[in-house]
Amino acid sequence: MTVNHKLGGMECMGCALAKKDLSVHVVYEDEFVCCILDHDPFNEGHTLILPKQHFRYVDEFDSETAIAVMKASQLLSKALKNIFNPNGITVCQNGGTIDELSHYHMHIVPRYENQSFASFYTEEPWDNEDLKEKLPRTRNELAKVISELY
Amino acid sequence: MTVNHKLGGMECMGCALAKKDLSVHVVYEDEFVCCILDHDPFNEGHTLILPKQHFRYVDEFDSETAIAVMKASQLLSKALKNIFNPNGITVCQNGGTIDELSHYHMHIVPRYENQSFASFYTEEPWDNEDLKEKLPRTRNELAKVISELY
Repeated sequence: MTVNHKLGGMECMGCALAKKDLSVHVVYEDEFVCCILDHDPFNEGHTLILPKQHFRYVDEFDSETAIAVMKASQLLSKALKNIFNPNGITVCQNGGTIDELSHYHMHIVPRYENQSFASFYTEEPWDNEDLKEKLPRTRNELAKVISELY
Repeated sequence: MTVNHKLGGMECMGCALAKKDLSVHVVYEDEFVCCILDHDPFNEGHTLILPKQHFRYVDEFDSETAIAVMKASQLLSKALKNIFNPNGITVCQNGGTIDELSHYHMHIVPRYENQSFASFYTEEPWDNEDLKEKLPRTRNELAKVISELY
């Protein structure tokens, strides 16, 4: 068992999520990454790719993690298009002190026409209770499609 | 010479940018990707990674392009931190009909504390004339640091 990264005596929450020490909805994982549903989804299927090792920025990755993150983003993009047929997919990652989670996490978000993404960058949570309630069902559906694609 | 992708009889602008058929400020390129400064930068150093071959979504990449895009994002993240010492780096890519450019392009944007990114997703151009005027200088500085890192 690897020990989670410590931040000022506190465990890193990203490490805890990636290692499933907290309650998470895992849709895909391999040796290097864990992909979980965002607990406060912007849209159904909104997923986070987390490296299992502690990194903050993309430029810190070892080559195996770099390839695993890229592969996971390709797999998720394909699966989300397959299930939700969105008008597009947004892939984004905000590293640094601007970020509330000091552990690299790439968002993969299906998006729809006429839907502004500006609210993604406001301080407010989206708090869509319908989407939150659906998380276990979304998880099952997404994990199934990914296992078929893989 | 490869022929650019056609979209309803029109040449794809992303192909033309990636192949430097249009006027661009290239900061880094290899066999698979071309990295250019955004012509309307959100902040100084705002760069686009474009595959040289025509792709729309990340899941369409061949493995060489996938690795080249990941490597370029790591190189750019490192160089931008080195030069501008931002509070963070945002990496984002909006694929699909929500996107004005129907050719995959990943934005790498240095960001600063208390700077909302919501305006990145509004319809308005940023039109920062100071940043536009600085583009040739930014290009020289960024290309130099990348060549030293590489």
